[in-house]
This record gives sequence, C-alpha cells and structure tokens, in this order.
Amino acid sequence: MGWRKKMETRNLTLLLDFYELTMANGFLQESPGKIGYFDLYFRKVPDQGGVVVYTGLAQVIKYLDNLNFTDSDIEYLRSLDTFDDKFLDYLKNFEFKCDVWSMKEGTPAFPNEPLITVRGPILQVQLLETMLLNIVNHESLIATKARRVCMIAHGRPVMEFGSRRAQGADAATYGARAAVIGGCLGTANVLSAKQFGLKPLGTMAHSWVQSFESEQDAFAAWMRVYPHNCLLLVDTYDVLKSGVPHAIEIFKQLQAQGINGPFGIRIDSGDITYLTKQARKMLDQAGFTNAKITISNALDEDVIQNVLEEGAQIDSFGVGEKLITAASDPVLSGVYKLVAVQEDGQLIPKIKLSNTVEKTTIPGFKHPYRMYDEDGKARGDLLLLASEKIRQNSKIYNSDPNKTIQTRRLKKWQLKPLHQQIYAAGKLVYQQPATLAVKDYSQEKISELPEACLRLKNPDIYDVFWSKQVRQLRTKMIDEFTN
Amino acid sequence: MGWRKKMETRNLTLLLDFYELTMANGFLQESPGKIGYFDLYFRKVPDQGGVVVYTGLAQVIKYLDNLNFTDSDIEYLRSLDTFDDKFLDYLKNFEFKCDVWSMKEGTPAFPNEPLITVRGPILQVQLLETMLLNIVNHESLIATKARRVCMIAHGRPVMEFGSRRAQGADAATYGARAAVIGGCLGTANVLSAKQFGLKPLGTMAHSWVQSFESEQDAFAAWMRVYPHNCLLLVDTYDVLKSGVPHAIEIFKQLQAQGINGPFGIRIDSGDITYLTKQARKMLDQAGFTNAKITISNALDEDVIQNVLEEGAQIDSFGVGEKLITAASDPVLSGVYKLVAVQEDGQLIPKIKLSNTVEKTTIPGFKHPYRMYDEDGKARGDLLLLASEKIRQNSKIYNSDPNKTIQTRRLKKWQLKPLHQQIYAAGKLVYQQPATLAVKDYSQEKISELPEACLRLKNPDIYDVFWSKQVRQLRTKMIDEFTN
Repeated sequence: MGWRKKMETRNLTLLLDFYELTMANGFLQESPGKIGYFDLYFRKVPDQGGVVVYTGLAQVIKYLDNLNFTDSDIEYLRSLDTFDDKFLDYLKNFEFKCDVWSMKEGTPAFPNEPLITVRGPILQVQLLETMLLNIVNHESLIATKARRVCMIAHGRPVMEFGSRRAQGADAATYGARAAVIGGCLGTANVLSAKQFGLKPLGTMAHSWVQSFESEQDAFAAWMRVYPHNCLLLVDTYDVLKSGVPHAIEIFKQLQAQGINGPFGIRIDSGDITYLTKQARKMLDQAGFTNAKITISNALDEDVIQNVLEEGAQIDSFGVGEKLITAASDPVLSGVYKLVAVQEDGQLIPKIKLSNTVEKTTIPGFKHPYRMYDEDGKARGDLLLLASEKIRQNSKIYNSDPNKTIQTRRLKKWQLKPLHQQIYAAGKLVYQQPATLAVKDYSQEKISELPEACLRLKNPDIYDVFWSKQVRQLRTKMIDEFTN
Repeated sequence: MGWRKKMETRNLTLLLDFYELTMANGFLQESPGKIGYFDLYFRKVPDQGGVVVYTGLAQVIKYLDNLNFTDSDIEYLRSLDTFDDKFLDYLKNFEFKCDVWSMKEGTPAFPNEPLITVRGPILQVQLLETMLLNIVNHESLIATKARRVCMIAHGRPVMEFGSRRAQGADAATYGARAAVIGGCLGTANVLSAKQFGLKPLGTMAHSWVQSFESEQDAFAAWMRVYPHNCLLLVDTYDVLKSGVPHAIEIFKQLQAQGINGPFGIRIDSGDITYLTKQARKMLDQAGFTNAKITISNALDEDVIQNVLEEGAQIDSFGVGEKLITAASDPVLSGVYKLVAVQEDGQLIPKIKLSNTVEKTTIPGFKHPYRMYDEDGKARGDLLLLASEKIRQNSKIYNSDPNKTIQTRRLKKWQLKPLHQQIYAAGKLVYQQPATLAVKDYSQEKISELPEACLRLKNPDIYDVFWSKQVRQLRTKMIDEFTN
C-alpha cells in the first residue's frame, strides 16, 4: 500500500469567506438562539439565455456531509486573534443541524427562484454561503453552457475536451460532469469519467504523430495498437495533402485485414468548413462513407452554428476551453440571501433593498412550484410561502415588472413542487441519483418547457409567478423601508 | 480523531485527457525507449496585455510529487478494455523519471517562451500534459489579471473576494494564491489563507445587518463584538440616508470609549463615485478622516480606472468574480508541445506545422534567458538551444516576424537564465519559496521590465530573441515539410 502515504487529504470546511467566520462569531455572541433562512438563487441567465440548468447538488451534499473543522483549523483560527474561545469550541464540536431544500439536480431553473433554501442556526447557515455558491455557480454555469452547445449541434455528439484550460482541477472534474449533465456525450477527463461513471473519450494528439519519423509511420503504429478503434488526427502537417490521404491508406490496410471500422479522422485547426467538406469527399471517394469526422478547434455554440450553416461535414465535436470556462460569459452570479429569521418561535421575513427592484430580495420562507397543463407542458413557475396553501383560481402575479399582463388566475394546472428536502435537522434525507440519471432527468424536464425559452438568442422569458402573499409581503416591506 | 474518518482523500493522477493514456499505451508498445522533450508555453497574453505572470509551479511540484495510480485506478482502466496488461503494470509501478526545468514562479513571461520544459520517457512526459497545462494556465491567468487590477489601483490595497463565483474550489483556493502573487493584499478565502500563509480579510455581509431589527442594532452588536476592528457595511438599506450616518454614530460611541479605530465602511452597490464622495464628506465632517472606504461591487481594472478618474474616494478595493475568473478573457491558452525526441542517444528536433507562422512550434531542446543592461533593466529575452554557448556580439533574431528590425548584436548585457532545474531524473532538486516570497520576487522582476510592456492597453511588445541556431533549425524544418 505504498501509494497510501502519497494520497492527499482534503477538507473544504475552511473554504469560506473570512466574514462568514467573523459574522458567525458575532452571531454566537449576539444572537445565539436565532434561526436563519437563506435562499440561494441567481438573477440573470448567462449569455442572455432563457434558462439555467441547475447543477451542483451532488457536490453540495458531499460538502455538507464532510463539514468539520480539524484541530489544525481551530489552531489556525485561534492564531488570528479574532474569535473567542466559545466560538472556537463551537466549531471544534461542530454538528450540522440545518434543514436544506433544493431543486433536483438538472432542473431547468429561472431567475429569482430559490434553487436552494437553508434553515438552521443562523451562524451555521451563514457559514455555508461561500461553498454553496461556489459549487452551484460553477456547475450550473457549465451545464447551462453545455446545453447551448449541444442544442446547436443538433444531435451530433459533443465531447468535453477542456481540462487543460479549465480554471483548476475541480473546474476540470466537476465541470466535465456538469457538461455531461448539460448534454455532452462524455469527457476526455479520465478522473471525472471514473468518479462519475461518464464515458472517457479521446485518441491521439499531435505529439504522437510528431514523435515518429513520418505521419505514415505514426498512423501505422497507431493501427497496430488500436486496429479496432482507428481514429486519426490528420492536421499535424497538412490535412488534405498529407493527413487524409495517409488516413485512407491505413483504413484500406485495415479493411484488407477484414476490419471495417470504426474509422475516423479528427481535425484540430484550419478552416473547418472547407477542410471537412474536402475530407468528406476524399473519404467517400475512397469508399469510407462510414468514416467519421470530428472537429475540435476553439469551438463554441456560435462557431458550431456558423460552420453547420456553411455545410461543414461534421459527425462530432470536441469542445474545449470555451465550454469548460463558459468563456463568453464566465460567471453565474448566484447569491445567497437572508430571507427570514426566527426567534422565540416567531418567523420574521427579511429584505435587502437595492436601488433596482430586480436586485431587491424576495422576503419570506418560500418554495417554488412548476405549473403543468393538461399536455404535460410547463406553463410557468410559482413561488409560494411555505406556510400557504394555494387554491384553484387564485390570482397569481408575474414576478417580472416588465410583463404587460401582470396577473392571471391559477388554472386547472398541476402544481409540482420543485423543492425536495435534502437535509432534515442535519441528516441527509435524500437519495442523490447518479450523474447519467441526472442528465436524463434534466433532458426530460427541459423537454417540458416552452421551446421559445430554450432559444439561444432572444429567448422568450419564461413566466415566474408569485402568490398574492409573496407579492404583498414584499411590497409591504419595501414600503416600510422607503417611506 | 473523529474528524479523520470524514477527511476526503484526493488523487489527481487520473486527471488527464484520455488520449494521454491511449498514446502512452501506444508509446510503450511502439516506442519503448524513446525520450521526449516537451515545452509548455503560451502564444497570447490575455486581455491584449504585454506580460503574463507565470504562476503554478508550487502546485506543479505538489502534483508531480503525488503522482501515483491507485489499485482502483488500475482496475478502472482495465475495465475500459483499451490498455494492455504490460501498460497497466507500468502504471501500477509508476516511477517518475523525468527532468523538469521551469521558470521561477512569479516570473513575468512572454509568448512562445518555454515556461516549463520536460524531458523523460516519452510516455511519462505525455501523461503530464493535462495537469501541467491546467495548473499553469489557470494560475498564471489569475496572477496576470491581478497584476492588471493592482496596477490600476495605484497602491491602494486590492483584496481578493471572489471565492463564491470562482469556477470550483480549486479555482477559489489556488486562484486566491495567484491573485496575491499578482499583487493583492490578501484574500477572503480562509482555506487559501491558511494553506499559503496569506492575509485573510473581510468583516460582514448584508445578512448580518438584515438579521437584526434595525441597522443601528446590527452595527451596535458588531461594535460590541469587534470594538477594535469596526468596519461596517453601509448599503443594506440606503448608503447616505441610513448606512453612513449610523456608522458615524457607532464610531462616535467607540471614540467615547477611547477607541480611535480602525474605522471603516464598505459599499457594495450603487454609484461608486457619487456615494464614496458623499460618504467621504460625511465622515470627514464628523471628524473621522481616518475612517477608510472600501468598495466591492463587480470591480475590474476598467471600472477601477474609471471611478478613480472620476475622483471616487476609495481607500481599498474588494475584487470578486471578475478577478477570480479573469472574466474579460477567461482563458490562458497555454500549450504543451513535443519539441524533440531522443533515440539511441540521438537528439531529433520535432516541429508541429500550422497554417500560421505563429502557431508553428519552435523545435529543439531550449532554455530562455533574460538580457540585462548595465542599469539592471531587462532589455529582452533570448532563446538558446540547450547545447549551445552564445558569444558576445553574436547576431540574435527577433522572434516576432512583424518587427521591422529583425536582427541585432548581443550587447555586453548580462544573460540570466530563466530556467531552473526542478526535477532531475524524477527527484525534486529545487526549493520552492513560500507564496509571499514568490510575490516579492514577482514584483522585483516586473520592476526590471520596460514600463511600456506593462501598460494595460496597447502595451509595447517586449522583445524575445532567438539565437542563430534556434532560428536556423526552425527555418530548415519548416522548409523540409513544406517543400
């Protein structure tokens, strides 16, 4: 077991903003019995899109299950001369006691809906802020981007190839998982594939081809090693003059041995449209209509859309840095806001004002629902206070102040809760599905949405409604503070 | 030791692209004795800047020191039905045997210089590709961005506040470290602060203020807990009508107790220029000229430059998502390219062609040097073959084909090697300095550069020269392949 000594250990409990600790220390002194309710939500869909693919719950559970301050953490915190002993003892004996509700992972979600709601001792709930946001902001960002890329590929497989340009090891590993949830076929990242049961993908790099005396030698060597999976990278020297002709020679040799594929080429540079059209012709003329063409150079949804419109002949895409970093809009700005406190059994809604209505929080302990019509199509979401029961035909209010029609009656639609309880008093009460099941769930839920909100450019805004109680509470609290 | 059972373990050895493994398996079969030389370098400075702050070596060392395939990794790879037993045995008994040269961490670096050069059994060198790139691309990106932000802050402290929007936990933790190397005073990320000896920073969030019945109550409670560090967040309700006046009341109460600071306010929303000017006036009129104003809302180098030009009254900046993701240009596109192989003792340079000269690799085993004039100013870098000795007055060649003056004579300048040997035959032979020493080193090295290449917009291109041998080798190899 020599490797054991080399295994790194890891504890993310201290991965929090310092102010979570200064506040928690303050809460213990000033508000020891206070219960806090926090909503985690985002305000804007990246890339001006219409929908976010909520992702990250699996890692949130892993994080919460592993919460613990080590002796070394406590000594470090003590050395900062900021916290009192009572607080350090509290951390040392930290016992997670919160209730957590969350949407299921993979759920398509919309601005200002609580993806996660946490209730518990306010200092505990506060301490979770940084990591919950870090996880959900990152993974949802990548799944959301992957959905865009995969949608525009119109059924052609998209492979996640971005580890080398990801923002760190977690970004590569959890990002690959999120990309698969968002629609990718698999990933080049072997660690992620192993950890999450994904399909590991890839064949050769330029270095393989370069390392031999000639491209022919390199391809022939590859054929000897992988006769039954001969996918050749054809752009090390010259795609059409050298790479494709040499690949065809190899495919012929394999055919002569009775091996009929899979055959394929990958092009990683140059004018994708021109090169793939020419390569397709050359392969077809040589009788290899079954040989697949993969493309992998700085792709994103815009480039894919353009080259497909130009008639590029592509069977699959390897998408790298622009997916794994969501380069066109690399931040999902999720926030984690106090919406209520509870003291001596009394629930007190809380608000954070802002100079824009949109950035002003929605007070109260709430759960989101999705409204389905008779055909099983989602017609909008609805935010209710946790304490309320809504009746058929109730008036509901559009949360978007820009919509012309602000109110409607709750139809005979089915209300399905979007929140599941994940933790009850600190105990995990939810069974998180495997990643590929999350992907299936996500695609099913996306298929229930109006197509217009899935569009990549200028999507229709999906309706999120508030109950009368939610709306009145917010209006009243804004008035109180501004009058 | 109850916490031990909860400690996650972590092994990044499998964090590699699948094709590294398929190639390595192929190399073992087809090129068992071959030695490979790879250069890690980037082609373009992000944000059209002039210089990259090379960062990541500490984590590269950690990665290489921990390389090992666990039994579970081997069984996983076996299950993929792609690799032969000989290769799996090789991995199981993996012994790192490479030589590694690298620039010192924090070195300002320029396009097409080998930041890292690795030599070793080609299958080993190949396996390192994904993680070396992942680490260096990410950390150098953030350090480079931080340098830009800190430069434009003109000596005002910049604090890294981005963990919640970072692309995963590593991006938060290593990103914070990189931000400090790039110039930040410290970070809100406690894990990073503990791990790397950084200054943890932060005070309170809106949730603290909201959780009390009134802003006054919240501030008073804070004062009781932290009388000697009373930095108050003043924008929960209304900065000028409520936040600043309430903060001033608190400062007066502290003063009455004989406590004269530090006092400070933080503003996290709204019109920074207007609000800070007004707040400054109010604080000064109340006699608190020593109270500091911190700003922290969606800042980057452009916003900071604008508000400072508008006369905003700011003492320090908290910079979040736009720094920790390098949002304006979130990828450093470093590559890792085969530059030579060695077989039976013979060194054979290798090239990867491209349709642009810039993307064509620089063949050969090389080391970079920095040329210093009599005043200790860096006048350019010079790439030499590892085997060559350069003489005074030799002709050197500008690597940039766009420069009008293409050649010059090597002056009586001092040549300082930029590469240090880090590993010799798999053994670590380098002492990596602590993070704050890396920061100091980086700032010293940056101060040696011509100011024009440090400019944020339209910087002068710093000269990188090639020796005659480097140039001739490349020209000859391009000719061979294209004629």
